[in-house]
Amino acid sequence: MYKETHLRSILKTISWRFWATLTTTVLVFVFIGEIGLAVSIGLVEVVIKMLIYFLHERAWGAIKFGRVEIKPMVIWITGLARSGKSEIGERLTELLKKKGLKAEHLDGHTIRNLFPETGFSRQEVNEHIKRVGLLAKKLEEQGVFVVASFLSPYKESREFVRKLVDGYYEVHISTPVEVCEARDDKGIYKKARQENLPNFPGVTVKYDLPENPDLEIDTTSLSTDDAADTILDNLNGRIKL
Amino acid sequence: MYKETHLRSILKTISWRFWATLTTTVLVFVFIGEIGLAVSIGLVEVVIKMLIYFLHERAWGAIKFGRVEIKPMVIWITGLARSGKSEIGERLTELLKKKGLKAEHLDGHTIRNLFPETGFSRQEVNEHIKRVGLLAKKLEEQGVFVVASFLSPYKESREFVRKLVDGYYEVHISTPVEVCEARDDKGIYKKARQENLPNFPGVTVKYDLPENPDLEIDTTSLSTDDAADTILDNLNGRIKL
Repeated sequence: MYKETHLRSILKTISWRFWATLTTTVLVFVFIGEIGLAVSIGLVEVVIKMLIYFLHERAWGAIKFGRVEIKPMVIWITGLARSGKSEIGERLTELLKKKGLKAEHLDGHTIRNLFPETGFSRQEVNEHIKRVGLLAKKLEEQGVFVVASFLSPYKESREFVRKLVDGYYEVHISTPVEVCEARDDKGIYKKARQENLPNFPGVTVKYDLPENPDLEIDTTSLSTDDAADTILDNLNGRIKL
Repeated sequence: MYKETHLRSILKTISWRFWATLTTTVLVFVFIGEIGLAVSIGLVEVVIKMLIYFLHERAWGAIKFGRVEIKPMVIWITGLARSGKSEIGERLTELLKKKGLKAEHLDGHTIRNLFPETGFSRQEVNEHIKRVGLLAKKLEEQGVFVVASFLSPYKESREFVRKLVDGYYEVHISTPVEVCEARDDKGIYKKARQENLPNFPGVTVKYDLPENPDLEIDTTSLSTDDAADTILDNLNGRIKL
């Protein structure tokens, strides 16, 4: 909930008084032709009207009418490990905030760090993603744009989130597995292959391709900033930001 | 994010003009003594100043200064089954909303209905409560008051939430188990005893008593509305709502 402070009302009062009294003084001068009288009326007006204006501001501050909240969306970014989801999500969140919108970035790595006991079986991943979906929904209901960057390889939990939230917008980072693997600076693909880790999407388990993503982006030769700009441009087509 | 609509600015412009022009006309009449001239100046002023005022409103609409958000809290309601947590939480959320605050009620039953696979072992309950904690934290960060009514019998997950969120306020509904059991219209205590259900707090597993709750309420002879009022009164002592 926003409240307007007294200081804001005071500054607005002064700013308005400057322009308004200038107008009154010029107006009286044009009608009467006497500069002295015009200035006298202007001076008295300054005092009386500042008080009335301030009270008027405080009264309107209590009126909700005409203060509208922008309907937010849940931008769900899915794709293989190292496809660039987190970085794009972070950048996109920044861009939304720069537009003055409320925005929150939910990221797979950050949330897993908070809940290290979360496993990687299909069931555990689905449970994890569904919980994130609820989080997104509650934030959305409160007027916050949500950018969620999660590998989210399984269609059943993505569909759960799609149904749960109101403004689901799916972005599939479709960068091929070979390209992602070539960027594998942390050695996670290498480890997955060497230790034959189960449940590693794109390597030892299937990544369910999104069937009808709202947007598909291949980051093979696209920078993080360009990818985030592309998403924002496409969102702009849907809703007026 | 709030935006002010054009219609709000227009109505505010008209409302202000009424009071301001009345003042100007009276002022000019007092100085000049000619009612005709005073009214003429008033009429011209109406037109010119409405335009200037509208532009002034739109310009200030773009200025963030002095629009402040109230710092919210996470009101965590813990207690045995049938102690009245959900009903009190619902009522309290209503009261907060009536004050014009953004508020969200998170309830154990509702969230478990969404994730029916959530179990009742100490580990599963802790995991569940921690996830709810993250949800509460994100809502709190966005300026939303959170009322969370969860049995939450285990101290480790309550402490996790306390540390995770910023404004944790713990309410212990301390109604004795005998009183809760006597209200057992759904027969859950009966079932727990008959089938010797494991993990039923207060019956087959210990409910960890909160060590330093911010507030303790016994609903043995207190109505839901009175309990919610008590919480609100105590919150009012902490923060100015």
